Formats: sequence, C-alpha cells, structure tokens
Amino acid sequence: MINFGIIGYGYWGPNLVRNMFEVSETRVVAVSDMREERLQQLSNRYPSVEVTTDFRRLLNNPEIDAIAIATPVSTHYDLALQALQSGKHVMVEKPMTSSSDQALRLIDEAARRKLTLLVDHTFVYTGAVRKIKDIAASGKLGDILYYDSTRINLGLFQRDVDVIWDLAVHDLAIMDYILPSSPCAIAATGINHVFGGTENLAYITMFFEENLIAHVNVNWLSPVKVRRTLVGGSKQMIVYDDMEPSEKVKVYDKGITVNGSPDSRYQALVGYRSGDMFAPQLDLSEALKVEIKHFAECIQTGAEPITGGQAGLRVVRILESASLSMKQRGKLVHLAPDGLVLSRGAA
Amino acid sequence: MINFGIIGYGYWGPNLVRNMFEVSETRVVAVSDMREERLQQLSNRYPSVEVTTDFRRLLNNPEIDAIAIATPVSTHYDLALQALQSGKHVMVEKPMTSSSDQALRLIDEAARRKLTLLVDHTFVYTGAVRKIKDIAASGKLGDILYYDSTRINLGLFQRDVDVIWDLAVHDLAIMDYILPSSPCAIAATGINHVFGGTENLAYITMFFEENLIAHVNVNWLSPVKVRRTLVGGSKQMIVYDDMEPSEKVKVYDKGITVNGSPDSRYQALVGYRSGDMFAPQLDLSEALKVEIKHFAECIQTGAEPITGGQAGLRVVRILESASLSMKQRGKLVHLAPDGLVLSRGAA
Amino acid sequence: MINFGIIGYGYWGPNLVRNMFEVSETRVVAVSDMREERLQQLSNRYPSVEVTTDFRRLLNNPEIDAIAIATPVSTHYDLALQALQSGKHVMVEKPMTSSSDQALRLIDEAARRKLTLLVDHTFVYTGAVRKIKDIAASGKLGDILYYDSTRINLGLFQRDVDVIWDLAVHDLAIMDYILPSSPCAIAATGINHVFGGTENLAYITMFFEENLIAHVNVNWLSPVKVRRTLVGGSKQMIVYDDMEPSEKVKVYDKGITVNGSPDSRYQALVGYRSGDMFAPQLDLSEALKVEIKHFAECIQTGAEPITGGQAGLRVVRILESASLSMKQRGKLVHLAPDGLVLSRGAA
Amino acid sequence: MINFGIIGYGYWGPNLVRNMFEVSETRVVAVSDMREERLQQLSNRYPSVEVTTDFRRLLNNPEIDAIAIATPVSTHYDLALQALQSGKHVMVEKPMTSSSDQALRLIDEAARRKLTLLVDHTFVYTGAVRKIKDIAASGKLGDILYYDSTRINLGLFQRDVDVIWDLAVHDLAIMDYILPSSPCAIAATGINHVFGGTENLAYITMFFEENLIAHVNVNWLSPVKVRRTLVGGSKQMIVYDDMEPSEKVKVYDKGITVNGSPDSRYQALVGYRSGDMFAPQLDLSEALKVEIKHFAECIQTGAEPITGGQAGLRVVRILESASLSMKQRGKLVHLAPDGLVLSRGAA
Repeated sequence: MINFGIIGYGYWGPNLVRNMFEVSETRVVAVSDMREERLQQLSNRYPSVEVTTDFRRLLNNPEIDAIAIATPVSTHYDLALQALQSGKHVMVEKPMTSSSDQALRLIDEAARRKLTLLVDHTFVYTGAVRKIKDIAASGKLGDILYYDSTRINLGLFQRDVDVIWDLAVHDLAIMDYILPSSPCAIAATGINHVFGGTENLAYITMFFEENLIAHVNVNWLSPVKVRRTLVGGSKQMIVYDDMEPSEKVKVYDKGITVNGSPDSRYQALVGYRSGDMFAPQLDLSEALKVEIKHFAECIQTGAEPITGGQAGLRVVRILESASLSMKQRGKLVHLAPDGLVLSRGAA
Repeated sequence: MINFGIIGYGYWGPNLVRNMFEVSETRVVAVSDMREERLQQLSNRYPSVEVTTDFRRLLNNPEIDAIAIATPVSTHYDLALQALQSGKHVMVEKPMTSSSDQALRLIDEAARRKLTLLVDHTFVYTGAVRKIKDIAASGKLGDILYYDSTRINLGLFQRDVDVIWDLAVHDLAIMDYILPSSPCAIAATGINHVFGGTENLAYITMFFEENLIAHVNVNWLSPVKVRRTLVGGSKQMIVYDDMEPSEKVKVYDKGITVNGSPDSRYQALVGYRSGDMFAPQLDLSEALKVEIKHFAECIQTGAEPITGGQAGLRVVRILESASLSMKQRGKLVHLAPDGLVLSRGAA
Repeated sequence: MINFGIIGYGYWGPNLVRNMFEVSETRVVAVSDMREERLQQLSNRYPSVEVTTDFRRLLNNPEIDAIAIATPVSTHYDLALQALQSGKHVMVEKPMTSSSDQALRLIDEAARRKLTLLVDHTFVYTGAVRKIKDIAASGKLGDILYYDSTRINLGLFQRDVDVIWDLAVHDLAIMDYILPSSPCAIAATGINHVFGGTENLAYITMFFEENLIAHVNVNWLSPVKVRRTLVGGSKQMIVYDDMEPSEKVKVYDKGITVNGSPDSRYQALVGYRSGDMFAPQLDLSEALKVEIKHFAECIQTGAEPITGGQAGLRVVRILESASLSMKQRGKLVHLAPDGLVLSRGAA
Repeated sequence: MINFGIIGYGYWGPNLVRNMFEVSETRVVAVSDMREERLQQLSNRYPSVEVTTDFRRLLNNPEIDAIAIATPVSTHYDLALQALQSGKHVMVEKPMTSSSDQALRLIDEAARRKLTLLVDHTFVYTGAVRKIKDIAASGKLGDILYYDSTRINLGLFQRDVDVIWDLAVHDLAIMDYILPSSPCAIAATGINHVFGGTENLAYITMFFEENLIAHVNVNWLSPVKVRRTLVGGSKQMIVYDDMEPSEKVKVYDKGITVNGSPDSRYQALVGYRSGDMFAPQLDLSEALKVEIKHFAECIQTGAEPITGGQAGLRVVRILESASLSMKQRGKLVHLAPDGLVLSRGAA
C-alpha cells in the first residue's frame, strides 16, 4: 500500500483523491491546500483524510510514501524538490517545471535518492493514446511522416502561462510518447489579444532529424471545441479525435506509393492507395487510474515510469523553445540531439 | 453577348464551357488544347464549338471578346499577356501568375488597354464566402482577431507547384476577400516527402499591422478531407465548413469580454460569453456561374472585378513570400504595406 | 428546508443524494436499501446520512418531509402509496407505476391528503427540452405536424420491463411536455431476440385528434448510440440531438407552403421554404437539480408539479397501450380523450 | 453492342443516356418524351440520338434491342408490356408497376418471350450495398436480427404516389437484396398533411418467419436529410450511412451473447460484446453504370438479372401491402410465403 499526500486541492485534486482511493494499491493520508474552504469540501466527502494548510506537515509525515503535486506550474519545482529531499516519491502535474534547468535538477535529485519521479502526462495513459503507441511501435504505420494536432476551444484564459504551456503541453506529451525521436528545431508563432495577457493562440512547427514534421495548433478563443490529431505514416495513417464519443482512433489504410529511384532522371511517379478504415476497440479505463497504478508499480519495482522525469524534461524543453520562438515571430530555435536548447534564435 | 475563347480543356475547362453556355450573357466560340483527344471529347458534346490545337487562332479571331486561360500556372503569364495584347479581356485561373512581377505586368497591360482582367478565385463567388463577407463587412464580428484555415486531403501530388500554390491559394483568395487588410509578414514551414518533389504539407502564419493573425494548414497527404475555416471576431465568430452538406457557415455569438483598462494596475479580467449559434441560408448558385456573370458585367461596365488583377497580385505575393519563408524553415518575410516583398528573410 | 428520505440507492440514488445536498432548500436525512454494501458506500461519502435496510423507518421518521423512490418500477406503487399514507410528499422514478390503475390511485391519495406527487421525468427539466417547450408554446413552429424520436444503443437488457418501459418512457415524457394534446390511438410493433426476455426493440406510432402523428423508435441492440428527436411544425422544425456536445437544439426555418383551397378543383400546389437555422443557447444547469428545486417549491406552495401525477399517468397509459398493441403486432389501441384506454385491440 | 431506346427524358433520363454511352457494350439510338423542350435539350447534347414524341416509333424500330422506361409509375405496366410484346428487352424504373398483378403479368410475358426484364433498383448496384450483401452472405453477421432504415428529407411532395412508393421503395429494394427471406406480414402507419395529397410521412414494420423484424421510416417533411440503415446481426452489426462522404459502411463487432438454454429454470443471462469497428473500402463505380453493364450481360447470356422481375414483384407486393395497412392505421397485412398478399387487413 502506497500512502499519498497531495499538495493542492483545486481542479485536479478531487480526481487524484478519488482515484487513489479506488486503486487498491494506494490511498490518501493527507491533503494540503491554502484555501480552507477547499479543505472543508474534502473533509465532507472524505472525513478520514487529514487536511492542512501547511504542506510541510505532509513532507514531515513518516506515514506518507509519495507526494502528488497539483498546484500552479510556477510552484512545481520548489515543492517537488522539497518532497524529494524529504525522501518522498513524487508525482507532479504537467508541465513538470517552468524551465528545463529545474526539470534537470529534479531528475538528478530523484536519481541520487533512488526515488520515483512521475510527471502527470495523463493523456499518455488513455486507451486511445496507448493504442496509437502500440500501432506505431508495431511498424504498421511505416515511417512516420507527420504529426499534426489541433486543440482549440473557448477556454479559460490563463494569466501565468500562455496557451502553449496550458494546451500544447498535452499534445507534446502525447507526441513524445508516440514518436520515436524528439524535435531538433522549433518555429512557433502566436498572438495575444488581451492587454497584459499571454498568447492565447499559437502554432508550433517542429522539425526532426528524420524527414518528419510536427505541428500543433492551440487556441483559447475558438467557438468550437476540436481535439484532433493526425499521425501520417508511409503505410497507414491515424486520425485521433478525442471529441468522438466512440471510435476515437481511426486507422486508415491510405497513402501514396512512390515509384522511381532517387537517382532517376525522371521525376518520381506518385501512386495513391486507398483502403479500409479500422477503428480498434479501446480500453475505457480511466487514464488517471491506470497512471496511479503504474506509479505504484514503479515505486515498488524501481522501474522508470513511462512519463518519468526525462519525458517531463523533453516536453518542457519543447515548451520553452516554442515560447522563445513565438516571442520572435517564428524564429527557428535549435535543440541539441539530447534535447538541450542549442542556439537561441540563431537560425 | 460576350464571346469566349478558352485556352486549356483539362480538369476545369468543361466547367467553364458548361457555365458559359448556361449564362445568358456569354457563349463559347472556340477552345484550344494541345491534346487532340480532349478536343474530340469537347466536339462530341458541343459540336458548335470550334476546336484547335493552336491557341493563337483564338487570339486572332475577331469574333472572340474574351479569353479564359485554364492551363498550368507556369503558362498563365505568357498566355494572358498575349491575349491582352490581342485586345481580349482575360479570365485567368488561379494562381494568377508564377510571380508578383508577372502579375504587376498583366495589371499594367490590362489597365493601359482598358481591358478587364479577372482572376478565377472561384470560392469568392460561393454563397458561403459571400455570406461571410457580408457578415464581416457589417461589423457584426467586431474586430477580426484571427483567421485559421485547414485544407487537407489525400490529394494529387503536383510536380510543378508545391501544396501552397495548389491548395493554400484557395484560402488566401478567400482571406483576401474577407479581411479588411493584407498581411505584413509571413512565416511558413513545410516538408516534402517525395524525392524530387515539392512540399506536400505546409503551414503558413501571416501577421498583420492590426492585432490579427492568420494561419493556413494545407496537406496533400491526409487520410481525411477537411475544409474548415475559423474567423474569430471580438463580438462573434464564424466556422465555415465546406464539407458540411448544408449549414456550411455557422455564426457563434461567443467570445470573451475584457474588463479593465490598459493602464489598469490590475491584470485584465476576462469574461466568457456564450450565446446562440446561427446558420444563415446560403445562395446555392454555382459559384462559377456567378463569377462568369460578374465578369460579363465588368466587361460591359468597365468596373473592376471583385477578383481583379489586384486581388490576384495580393495572393501571388503571399504565395511567393510563403514559399520563400518555407525554404528557410519559417524565416520571417516582410511584405510592404502595398504588398511588395520588402525584405527577403531578414527578420 | 425539505428533509428527504430516499428509498433505493442503486444507479440513480447517488445522483439524488448529491443534488439534494447541493440544492439549498433540500437535504437528505436517511436512505434505505436492501443491499448493505450500497449503504456502506453511501456512509463513506455522506457519514451524516442515516442508513437502513428497512424503508419503513423512513416513513415513520417525523423529521422526514418527502420520500424519493428510486427502486424497480414494480415496487413504485406500493412504496409510493405507503409514503403518501404516512403523510410524506413523494418523488417517484419514471415510469410512475406498472399500470394506469395504480397511477390513478396514487393521484387520488395525494390529492386527498394534499401532498405533492412528482414523477421524475428528468429530461423535462433539461435546458434543451425546456427550450423546445418555449419555442413550441410561443407558436413559432406553427401547427405541430409530427414528432419523431429515435433512442437506440447497445443498452442493458432489462428482465422485468421491455424496451418501451425502459427507453420510450423518456421520449413519451418529453413528448407529453411539449405537445399540446395526448394521443388518441396507438399502434406498436417490436421483437424479442432473447429466450425468456422482453421486447428489446420496438416502434410506437401514436395518432392524435389533430392532424399530427408521433413515432418512437427504441432499441437495446444498436451498435451506435442515437438520441434524436424531430418536431415538425408547419412554420418551423426542430431537431433535438442529445448526442451533440453543444447545439443540441436546432431550429430550422424550413417547410412547405400549400397553395390552393380545400374546395379547389385542382390539386394543392406545394411550395418549399428553406431558410436559416438557429441553435439557441441552452441553460446548462443539471436537470435533476432544477427538478428538485421545482419539487421543493411545489411542496412549499402547493402548486402542481410540471411532471406531477397526471403527467405520470398519461405516460403510463401510453406505455401500457403500446405494450398491449405490440403483443398483437401493431393492433390499434384507442385511448379515450381523457387518456383512458377505451378499447383494447378492437380497431 | 446493345442498342437502347429510352421512353421518358425527365429527371432520370439524362443519367441513363450518359451512362449508356459510357458503357462500351451499350448505346442510345432513340429517345421519346412528350415534351418537345426536353427532346431539344437532349438533341443539343447528343445530336446523334433520334428523338420523337411517339414512343411507338421506338418499339417499331428494328435497330433497337432494349427499351428503358423512365416515366411515371402509373405508365410502367403498359409501356413495359408493349415493349416486351414488340420483342424488346426491358429496363423499367422502380417501382416496377402499380400493382403486383401487373408485375406478375410482365414477368410472364418476359419469360414466355425469353426477354430480359430488369427493374432499376439502382441502389443495389452501389459499392456500399454490394459490400453489405457480401458481408451478410458470408455469414459474418450471424443471424440477422433486425433491419432498420431511415430515409427522410425535405423532399418533393408527389401527387400520384405516397411517400412509401417514392422513398421506401429504395429501402425495400436494398432490403430485398440483402436479407435472405421476404416479410410475411406488414403493419404500416403514416399521415398526410396536405389537402388532397398522399401520405408524406410513413412508418413500415415488416415481420418475417424468422425472428427478424424490419422497419422503414420515410418522410418528405424533414428539415434534415438522413439516409441511414442498421443491419443488426447476432455476431456483427452494420451501419450504412449514405450521407457520409466516405466510410458509408461501418461494421461493428458488437452485440450480445446469451448464456443459458431455452429450458433453463433461470432467466437467460445476457452478456455484452464490444469490439473493433471496420469500414471497408467501397467500389466507387457509378451504380447505374454497373447496372447497365449487368443488364447488357444478362441480355447476352440469358441470365436472370439481380434485380429482375421477381425482385421487382417482391418490392411491389410490400409496397401495396404497406399502403393497404397504412390506410387502416397499422392493421396487419399478411403476405403468403410466395409473396402473395394473403389476407387483406384480417389480422
């Protein structure tokens, strides 16, 4: 049994508490939040859980094995670091940290103390994304040629983070899980329509060493809600539409065939292939439940989580590069092969 | 009665012939194409139309008032110029020309000779786009904040032009008609997946002097067909989905309201407005028919067509800037206020 | 403050408890269920609520003002009658009872004792159905010409009731609320595919005194989920699609116009009208919350609830007539103007 | 080469002419229509085709092998009979005739003269319906449990035939092709909203000897266009949505499993199966072209067409039984095993 303390009981906190009680390997011992009324609501529903406005009481509680951090992103680093230094395993909301330096520091701390660090890239644990990963990993798609995602709706304008850190983080976490490699350069554009605000609409293009391109379209100011990702492969292509009540993942046996060799004097001839479409049955388990079980297993076995610190770091690196590029109207930002930001704006 | 000669009887030619016969003010006198079998097909259906493999016969035919050019883009300039120099009014397929210099030259020639020059931006004449224009021009949308268009499908890979010149040209023509101003800078990215080919997938971001951004996503390698444009205004927003069998244009009474003044010490407070949706009835007339009637009227009155040479030029300028930016992975390309490409890649 | 006792804590019970706590005028005092494990689950979440396996303790509790009955339909009559006889107001799940005789008896009992009796036709309290009612009542639809509803999915096969009593009851409750009159005759057909089971697929046609027809298509064995109702009026028509994430109600300014008078020697000429479509914003309040508030108000004021005993009775009468007709392969069953079943199968 | 004469050049005639010219085995020699302006339009497009207002000239033309009849249904019988008596093969629009007696007479005449008689059930020749037939015939669906079709839109109100003969005929022709047997009894309901008109909205339930039910919902007065058919099998189920631009046929690996034997003391236990969905690629050939080729082959080989006189007769029998039942508000009409109407309204 893994005993959890949770820091932050806002939008996501209740989902953490519920699932940690429903997963047989975990339970919640204590929750901290600075807002008394939130704690009161928790107590009404879960009288057995200890509540406090001081998160340090959780860190100092020897009964607690692991800390889940569900607070604003600017606090993730400090809280996660203290939790690790207190010997607790850590599950931190996405984005992992505000900067890649912070993310690296947390990875180091967890590694040195042999503690499990998991970033809550929840979508990675959905049946849909796991199925896409299986298909991509099986080679059925052939070479992946592009990844194109749209995540738009009339959403809550954030004050502290731009739409990339708020919405694109989901797409980047999914993409990081599905694609076999990481981008080597990024060009992002966007706009802010509110005085004193952050960009509420953005477009990110990511280049890879392979002949692959990725693009993410995120928007807080759309009249319609769209959650659609295309993964184009040389053999098959996937459309993942999270707004579909069922058949969220559709695999199309469509594509082109290129006749002719690179050294041909004549232009390549392109053929078009059209075939069946297939919508595999998806595991409907709640993603957060699957994730918490996975975290519990990793704690027990010492295995690296699927969405461990390295995955969190890779996503943060893309986020910071994208925001940097966006400030300069799409100036190309290079990322080193190991994910480090190489050159800042020197295209 | 306007007598037409048509150069090029490929994919689009039969639509031109049919509509020119159905519009009472116009008729087709002669058609040229280099392929005998195409001319034979035409003769079977329209035995009264003169056919020839030599387009010069059309230019020299005094009975012909106007020439429609439906050939590959690389030939537009030469053919249109010769037609104008022969004293014919000209209707040229989009994109108008391969370069803005060529477009400027055609505009000059038509102006000097007082001939009507129309670029076949067909979508501009659809009931859907005309309705969007009406709504935008009425001020009901408020300030336009963004324009976001997606045009993807498993399309014919072109050899001579990239996907921007093939697909984005539609979006740019529509955008040029709807928006009150033209972009001042462009950043485009894309990829080519076929050896020896052109970019088959591209993303274009356009910046404006106003606090407005536009984006176009075009792709020849998508398993699904999407034709969707969002026009986000400060008061209302439009979704134009050309794949809908009816209700192609939806107007949403949704948006944000910003409380607080620019000099406020406090961050702006954003409110969210959600209201009715409205799908206006659209004129279902065939766009090409509306366009040919308009062309005939402009010839008779001397008025500048809605999609005249200037509109054609503005679109070509965006196309060439976008291709230029795309070659340099999104490097910003500035356009002068009058649409001239100012600096090439010097961000 | 209305104090509630709830009999039955199965599928629907938790929704009742949660909403009764969230509505400021109501709270839950005690809950009974025959299954100890259900009561244990309740106690974990709501430790303040008294639990018991004996519903009589609720009826005898003087602190309790009203009883909500959320048990299988076969028990509704006995439990509701005893609750009324104990002086409690009653909110009973739909269908109200297993027979119209039982429903009449409950109405009498409530009237004699001046107690409020509400049947939980939840859909009537949704923003969508209330909006449709408003539009229909305003006369904007003109004369209502037809009502056509489809409610199909791969649903739980019930053992005690057929698909009409399980699914069509929703459509009939909505129809009863929206239409100005009740059907005068019913013809229903259906089929049972499971040995020893009840009809799992059924079609009900309802005739009215007016030139109006209604039809309901219900099916537990559909591979796709459909929840769609058409309300055809002589002026406007409504499509209500409950599967739409937003824009559940669409009002079409479409229809026919009939030229020519009844005594015309010539056949009427039909014209076709096509106009705008309009999707009004809907109140997104949880229907059950709206309903519980309404029940509390009716208890306090003595007003008849929108979905009172009479509405419950009308729906039960249609249900029993439909099942009767279905057993005889669509034999017409007449209903008296006051809703009584007149002739059973004597067409 | 089969030489065709076509009687009737209204809505469907141009499609017949075009396809007969495009199919290499057939061509059009002459067309008759009583309206001179229709013949003029034809001559403009196809100057080689002989036109006449007297259909007898076609019957007497020895050059003509086969007659296609595309006139109002009330004339089908007379024209087809005369064509057969003139020794011509016959392709007649659906519905085949106004009565089953007429249909039987035509079958006899064609058989005696060894002429090919085809009823133009066009949908049967679509890639979608042929694929459904293949799947059903392969046994993959298991036992077919139900067939449920909706065909509604704001359609042209017909004067001579009701909505069943106009719209349901399509569904019945498809159903006749797909299902292994014919209905044994029919109950239909409907309504007419126009004085002096015919029923413009109807519901048909069909019972079979097997534990199978079929239902058709047709409506000329719907604000939205729906073309959707469900074929429910014990193993798999199909949704055929003709409004989908692609993926018109979806096969769902869903259903129920019944545990327990008929003689079980305990009620059957129903299990639910949910699996993949599969949308097979469809042949996109124009249905009418496929049909004309098939007709030409049948003429040459003497084979009975897929949609020969017997199929036409079966559909007419259902149509006349349905109209008969509808006049009596759903009274059951029995059909003999060989398709004859057994008892008229004696349920």
